[in-house]
Amino acid sequence: MAARVRKTATKLADGRDFFYFDDSEPYVSGEKTRRLDDPRPLQNRFAPVKDEDGNEKPVTGPTMRLDPLTGEWVVIATHRMNRTFLPPADANPLAPARPGAAYQDGEIPDTDYDVVVFENRFPSLMQIPGEPVEVSDLDGQSVWKVAPAAGRCEVICFGPDLNRNLVDMGPSRMRTVIEAWADRTRELERIEGIKQVFCFENHGEAIGVTLHHPHGQIYAYPYITPRTASMIRQARQYRENTGGDLFNDVLAAELRSGRRIVDESEHWVLYVPAASRWPIEMHLMPKRDVKALYELTDEEREELAHLYLRMLKAGNKFFEIEEGGQKTYLEIPYVMSWHQAPVGEERELMRLHMQLHSIQRAPGKLKYLGGSESGMGAWISDTTPEKIADRLREVYEK
Amino acid sequence: MAARVRKTATKLADGRDFFYFDDSEPYVSGEKTRRLDDPRPLQNRFAPVKDEDGNEKPVTGPTMRLDPLTGEWVVIATHRMNRTFLPPADANPLAPARPGAAYQDGEIPDTDYDVVVFENRFPSLMQIPGEPVEVSDLDGQSVWKVAPAAGRCEVICFGPDLNRNLVDMGPSRMRTVIEAWADRTRELERIEGIKQVFCFENHGEAIGVTLHHPHGQIYAYPYITPRTASMIRQARQYRENTGGDLFNDVLAAELRSGRRIVDESEHWVLYVPAASRWPIEMHLMPKRDVKALYELTDEEREELAHLYLRMLKAGNKFFEIEEGGQKTYLEIPYVMSWHQAPVGEERELMRLHMQLHSIQRAPGKLKYLGGSESGMGAWISDTTPEKIADRLREVYEK
Repeated sequence: MAARVRKTATKLADGRDFFYFDDSEPYVSGEKTRRLDDPRPLQNRFAPVKDEDGNEKPVTGPTMRLDPLTGEWVVIATHRMNRTFLPPADANPLAPARPGAAYQDGEIPDTDYDVVVFENRFPSLMQIPGEPVEVSDLDGQSVWKVAPAAGRCEVICFGPDLNRNLVDMGPSRMRTVIEAWADRTRELERIEGIKQVFCFENHGEAIGVTLHHPHGQIYAYPYITPRTASMIRQARQYRENTGGDLFNDVLAAELRSGRRIVDESEHWVLYVPAASRWPIEMHLMPKRDVKALYELTDEEREELAHLYLRMLKAGNKFFEIEEGGQKTYLEIPYVMSWHQAPVGEERELMRLHMQLHSIQRAPGKLKYLGGSESGMGAWISDTTPEKIADRLREVYEK
Repeated sequence: MAARVRKTATKLADGRDFFYFDDSEPYVSGEKTRRLDDPRPLQNRFAPVKDEDGNEKPVTGPTMRLDPLTGEWVVIATHRMNRTFLPPADANPLAPARPGAAYQDGEIPDTDYDVVVFENRFPSLMQIPGEPVEVSDLDGQSVWKVAPAAGRCEVICFGPDLNRNLVDMGPSRMRTVIEAWADRTRELERIEGIKQVFCFENHGEAIGVTLHHPHGQIYAYPYITPRTASMIRQARQYRENTGGDLFNDVLAAELRSGRRIVDESEHWVLYVPAASRWPIEMHLMPKRDVKALYELTDEEREELAHLYLRMLKAGNKFFEIEEGGQKTYLEIPYVMSWHQAPVGEERELMRLHMQLHSIQRAPGKLKYLGGSESGMGAWISDTTPEKIADRLREVYEK
């Protein structure tokens, strides 16, 4: 990690890992250190729980079942039903523990922070210590496989202020977020059984965000996800057919065509992919064959910080609207996905890239997934990649 | 087709195919015949169109591009942007042309109907007569393939009344709908280049339905959809590994386990699949290895009509709510998908079955697709298939 970010590791009261990523004084130099205890009366999350009759039973984690019709794992995480849902501002669990704040509900021990990462209190993926990670038959039937969903879910807070989104931050803070993503990817990949690390952000109520505080998530899956599996399969077939590298050739084709390029820097290309499927979609790919965020050089990271923010700003100027007689722009809901290579032999077939997509197809109109998309996986787009690119190039600011 | 339904084929003014499926007098006996002309001043939809300078140019159809990273076709149907969106009741284009009705906007020439099917005015898939169905390179780059989306989209109206949904109809009218699905599947499969026919219904504003009139859709794809491709791949691998038939063995396992069965009749099984991924999900599978709806026997169709309606009724009793101090139930939004075998050599690997799923996870709460689902295709379920089955069995009425 670059020297300008200081990482401090600690644990929350229930045993979850918690990391500060500091880029400001007096923390980054070490002049002042972070609070390392969490005074909340939280029980260790792996302690036995009491059932209705008062008997202790071991805590259970999420599970996953292999769907025999599609070959895809489906995670079952029932305890998430009770997760925090759009809390009022004074019960924001991602706010720093400022004097007078409702700290009992909060996850951040210190009175301020730059960027923090910690294990999700309501994880979809979790390894229970000591629980064997074994695949077994469900209901004693060999067509169904079930296993612990022994992965890990982390939350990344982009900053201490409820109303200051990633897009409003400067490149310096954005760089800290990149350092945190890179650090967590490297560490999570080292956990036994983890196949793939996924850094992402769900942004906006329209796509179901349950907490307004600017944050993203990091999932470490114990299996290769369907989309990654598709890309690996395509890349392997492409290599067999042509001897070439699929990602390299797709990027080269986008640059030769030039029709959908939104921005190009020394190390990165931002473009609308030729077969985009969402009302707004952008890919951001490094020119070098890099597998994961932590393999990026210092210079690549620095450029990324700038490009990433310009990309978000362009997205937020895509739709012009009128509000109270004034012309302004619609802040779009989006999903941002970092596609990183899986751990293991298939790693060399993938290249790191980012996908940003939005379901906003017009002001007041969302793209919904109907039968074709959600029943058959067959996408119908109402627009063309070229129209999306034209509009983005119109509003994009260097 | 059973003698109790009479099919009458006609054409709309712009050349689209239109079919009446009558099950009531005086039409079913032929005593009275259907109106066969459409007096609207609609231009033939394949006639040349004028551009901004007044020059005629040939009409173009939707296209599709092969996404090199996933191997999936993405259809681009830009003209759908202007499709009818939640019209007021007096401009309902699916209402019959009753005296005094705003007929100019309507698609149904006659003054009443039982069930009708016609080509969609805003199709996502359409073959332009004479246009060669050829795959070519996009932008001259061989990594990208583009082709006409030369399929067909039809609309099926379940009945003439705006406020009478499929669930409110009796088994006799439901049977007519089944006959119409079966008939259209058989005919659409015969069109050159069609690989797969998909009968489905999007129900409820929460999933983006743009017309309230009770209707479904039928897509004839010129390619095998991703979900079907997955099932074919799984079934082939299962056969290679075990010598068995995947669908047969999944159904047998569900019956042996019994844990998620909602209903079983002589010819059908209604169940929550062991690896369900939606807040509510049911599969309905025939016990016999049938490939498409038109292969069902008379007895199988009759049973299906009854089971289908009971299934919809159970879905609509899943969530109890209070309205004005009264206990009642929430009408759920849902997507209903008929998975039929594709045309060609892969046909024998698939079995016909229906999937009904809802994104309603609680009253007032929807399941949204976040980064894991829409970025990675990795599903996280908040509930268990067993809990869904328990609730459905509680409210299911024979």
